[in-house]
Amino acid sequence: MTRTIVASATKEVVIGFDQPFCVIGERINPTGRKKLAAEMVAGNFETVKKDALDQVAAGATMLDVNAGVTAVDPNATEPDLLVQTLQIVQDLVGVPLSIDSSVSAAIEAALKVAKGRPLINSVTGEDEKLEAILPLIKKYDVPVVAISNDETGISEDPDVRFEVAKKIVQRAADYGIPAHDIVVDPLVMPIGAMGTAGRQVFALLRRLREELKVNTTCGLSNISFGLPHRHGINAAFIPMVIGAGMTSAIMNPCRPQEMEMVRGANVLNGTDANCYTWIMTYKDHQPASSGNSNASAASSSSGAQASAAGRRRGGREARRTRV
Amino acid sequence: MTRTIVASATKEVVIGFDQPFCVIGERINPTGRKKLAAEMVAGNFETVKKDALDQVAAGATMLDVNAGVTAVDPNATEPDLLVQTLQIVQDLVGVPLSIDSSVSAAIEAALKVAKGRPLINSVTGEDEKLEAILPLIKKYDVPVVAISNDETGISEDPDVRFEVAKKIVQRAADYGIPAHDIVVDPLVMPIGAMGTAGRQVFALLRRLREELKVNTTCGLSNISFGLPHRHGINAAFIPMVIGAGMTSAIMNPCRPQEMEMVRGANVLNGTDANCYTWIMTYKDHQPASSGNSNASAASSSSGAQASAAGRRRGGREARRTRV
Repeated sequence: MTRTIVASATKEVVIGFDQPFCVIGERINPTGRKKLAAEMVAGNFETVKKDALDQVAAGATMLDVNAGVTAVDPNATEPDLLVQTLQIVQDLVGVPLSIDSSVSAAIEAALKVAKGRPLINSVTGEDEKLEAILPLIKKYDVPVVAISNDETGISEDPDVRFEVAKKIVQRAADYGIPAHDIVVDPLVMPIGAMGTAGRQVFALLRRLREELKVNTTCGLSNISFGLPHRHGINAAFIPMVIGAGMTSAIMNPCRPQEMEMVRGANVLNGTDANCYTWIMTYKDHQPASSGNSNASAASSSSGAQASAAGRRRGGREARRTRV
Repeated sequence: MTRTIVASATKEVVIGFDQPFCVIGERINPTGRKKLAAEMVAGNFETVKKDALDQVAAGATMLDVNAGVTAVDPNATEPDLLVQTLQIVQDLVGVPLSIDSSVSAAIEAALKVAKGRPLINSVTGEDEKLEAILPLIKKYDVPVVAISNDETGISEDPDVRFEVAKKIVQRAADYGIPAHDIVVDPLVMPIGAMGTAGRQVFALLRRLREELKVNTTCGLSNISFGLPHRHGINAAFIPMVIGAGMTSAIMNPCRPQEMEMVRGANVLNGTDANCYTWIMTYKDHQPASSGNSNASAASSSSGAQASAAGRRRGGREARRTRV
C-alpha cells in the first residue's frame, strides 16, 4: 500500500489510497493577489496568518506555502521571503506544510528551517529541474509533487503525460528516492476549453495508481476555469477524482460546498470509519431554506427523509412477497 | 454502444454511456406516503399531478409511476389504480415514464394503455418473477429494470449480485430480449450500516458496464439511509456512480443540490456538449450567502474566482521559465 508520510513538528499525516482525502490548502500564495504580495514584501504577515488559521479551521489536512511575489530577480529575494513565511506558518499551526516554489534556492533555504517532513511542490519532467530538485529531495528525505509536463510543455495527450510522470519516478529512483515519495500531478485542463479533460484525468489517475502505484494531486479549481458557478463544477469534480483514485488536491478548504463533497466522498470511499467525521460535522445540520427546491415542506424534514428511504427499501423488499 | 430507448408519445430518450445521466423522478409513489395513498384511493390525483409537473420542471428525464397503495388484495385493486395514474401522468407531461409495480397484472394492464415505450420497473432474479415479467417485456417490446436479488434475498457479496444480474440477462436472451433492454439495479446498501457499500457498488457498476455491457440504475437515496444531512451524501454519491459508469437513477429531482451534482458530473463526464446545459442553468447563478464559509468577501466574487484560476495556471506555467 502506497503511503506518503508528511509531518509538522508535532503531527504526522499519511497520504494514501486507504486514507481520507488530503486537502492541501492553497490560500497562502501571493501569485495574482497583489495586496497580499505587497503586504508580504513589506513584512506584514497578518493576511498570511489569517489564511493559515482559517484554512485549518475549515478542515485543511495540510497547507501549501508559496512566497512567489513578482520580483526582478526571484533567485535573490524569494529564498528569504519563503523562509520567513514558512517559519511564521509553522509556528502558528500544527498541520504539515507544503513548500511551494519554482526557485530551487528558495526550496533549499526553506528545507533548512522546516520542521517535520514537508512536501516539496514541485518538480517537473524537465531535465534541468530534475537535476536541481531531486538531489534536495534525497538529501532532506522529503516527498515531492511531480508535475507531468516537460521541456515540450503540457501535452494534451494523456499518454504523454503518463510517460512524463513515469520518467520522473524512474529518475527519482536513480537518486534512491522511492515511488511512495512522489505525488504525481497529472495536470487538470479546464473542462470548458476541452470537453475530454475530465475523462482524461480520470483515466490517468487510474493508470498512475495501478501502474505506477503513486499518490496523486492536482490544482483542483483549474477544471472549472471560465465556467459560471465554478464551485458547483469543483464540487462535482471532487467525488469523481476521489472515485478514480486521487489521494490529495491543492484547493481552497474555505469553501463549504467543496469540503462537504470531500467529506461525503470519504464516507463513500470507505476512508471515514463508521462515518465518524461526517456525523460529527453534520449531526446538527439544518437544511438550508428550500430556495429553488420544489420539494414539499414535509419531505425536507429529517423524519420524512428517513421514512422515504425506508419506503424505497421497504418497497423493494415488500415486492419479493408478491407476484 | 449500449443504448436503451424509452419514449413517451412524443419524446424519445436514450439511456447510454455517452448520454447525459437519466434522472428518473421517484415522487409519484404512495408507498410510505399515507396522505397520497388515501388521495389516490379516493380518486384524487391532484398531488400526483403536482408531483409530475414539479419533477419535470426540476429537470427529471423521465418519471416513475407507482400506485402501490396498501390493499388486502393488490392483484385485484392495483391494476386499475396504476392504469388510472399512468393515464393521468402521460396526458399531463411529455417525458417518458417508468411503470413501477410488484404486481404483474398491474404491469400488464398499464402496458396495454401506455403510449410510447415505457420502462418497466422491475423484474428480479427470482424464477417465478422472471417467468411472469419477461414474456410481457418481449410481447410489448419494452426495456426493464433488473434488480439483482433472487430467492435467496439480497446478497451482501457483490459477486453474487453480479451473477444474479448475469442470470437475468441470460434468461432475457432466452426470450429474445436484448441486453440493451435490461437496465440493471445492482442494489445500493446504506453506507452507514456497511462501510464497503460505496466501493462495492462502484466495482459492480464497472463490471456490469464492461462485462455485461448493460445500462444501470439504482434507488439513489438508499446510500444515505440513517445518516445526518442525507442530501450531502446523496450529492457526493452521484458523481461517484456516474464516474463508475452508472447511467440512470431513481431519485428526487426536486432537490437542487443533487441535481447540481448530476449536471456537474455530466459536464465532467463529457455528456453535456460544450457545457451547454450547465451554462444555461447557472449563467446567472449568484453564490449563496457565505454562511459558514471562511472565504474572504473578495474571493467569492466571480471576478476574483477567475483571476484565482488564472493565478494557479499562471503560477505553474510561469515556473517553467525559472530554475
